[in-house]
Amino acid sequence: MQYPEAISRLIESFTKLPGIGPKTAVRLAFHVLDMEEDDVLMFGKALVSAKRDISYCSICGNITDKDPCYVCSDKHRNRTIVCVVQDSRDVIAMEKMRDYQGLYHVLHGAISPMEGIGPEDINVSSLLTRLQADEAITEIILATNPNIEGEATAMYLSRLLKPTGIRVTRIAHGLPVGGDLEYADEVTLSRAMEGRREL
Amino acid sequence: MQYPEAISRLIESFTKLPGIGPKTAVRLAFHVLDMEEDDVLMFGKALVSAKRDISYCSICGNITDKDPCYVCSDKHRNRTIVCVVQDSRDVIAMEKMRDYQGLYHVLHGAISPMEGIGPEDINVSSLLTRLQADEAITEIILATNPNIEGEATAMYLSRLLKPTGIRVTRIAHGLPVGGDLEYADEVTLSRAMEGRREL
Repeated sequence: MQYPEAISRLIESFTKLPGIGPKTAVRLAFHVLDMEEDDVLMFGKALVSAKRDISYCSICGNITDKDPCYVCSDKHRNRTIVCVVQDSRDVIAMEKMRDYQGLYHVLHGAISPMEGIGPEDINVSSLLTRLQADEAITEIILATNPNIEGEATAMYLSRLLKPTGIRVTRIAHGLPVGGDLEYADEVTLSRAMEGRREL
Repeated sequence: MQYPEAISRLIESFTKLPGIGPKTAVRLAFHVLDMEEDDVLMFGKALVSAKRDISYCSICGNITDKDPCYVCSDKHRNRTIVCVVQDSRDVIAMEKMRDYQGLYHVLHGAISPMEGIGPEDINVSSLLTRLQADEAITEIILATNPNIEGEATAMYLSRLLKPTGIRVTRIAHGLPVGGDLEYADEVTLSRAMEGRREL
């Protein structure tokens, strides 16, 4: 005997999600049976509408339910700075900070020769088009992740953008606030020393 | 800025699942954006149909998409033995064994005074009704989990069923096959000694 068809299909769908193995999928599917029908309906609708209603902003590439997105169409933002990030989630992280008032550009990935991801596989060409079309932009902040792929991408972009004459900056590496010098790794510490500033 | 409405709702739905925290929910929701639309539609349908099409068998209480369920309506099974389990997943586990040809009764829980779950909260009364109505049943195998709640439930049921004169048995406790005596806990070992048999 197997699970009834309807359950099997649900288990299969859960198994396709990242980080969810067969046992967790069974547990989740059985949890759905115990949920209120309204909650299940809402879940089903949320799935489909997330897929259908969410698209990418034609200017910055961020996920959005209207085009241009909330940030790109906001007249009160500083339109001279563009912060380049790898992922839409990074935009949310930046926005939570509440300090940054500029625009964004979402690459949807980073250059990774190991995984065969080159500059043409990420959202770079639209950044160039954007810079050519919009002369107001005077600074590009490269806020890709501080790891090998992110650094490679930042390096690539800084070289690519140099000829345009636009100021290109990279977010600082250093000790995280609240961190402990004793436990910092050497690379971070070395970058923190390198990036020291006059007080 | 927050996530677009459609994403927020999906994240919220994922967060309601057991063992899925806010960060995992965000990761899953973004994964859905990258999935094929067909897969997402199938997922949504599977959710709703699992909730709508799956009900409980009126005889044994197991989950099923037809009533009576596959096992209860199977004429080739041994209708004199009923195996009492806590959960529908336990039925699947028993069926995987392929050794057992009798029927089942699913309690949907176990007696747990700690959590305020008494005999009236689990599927016990229907077991009694079933035994009264079906005189073919000659043995009840108590296969509740080998933990405090499962033992308490087995104990309760054995006392409850004694007056009916039906044979009541409990599955054996002992060393798991492939296990290591050295690493067995004392209680299991003591039960294994207690349950020793002539060779």
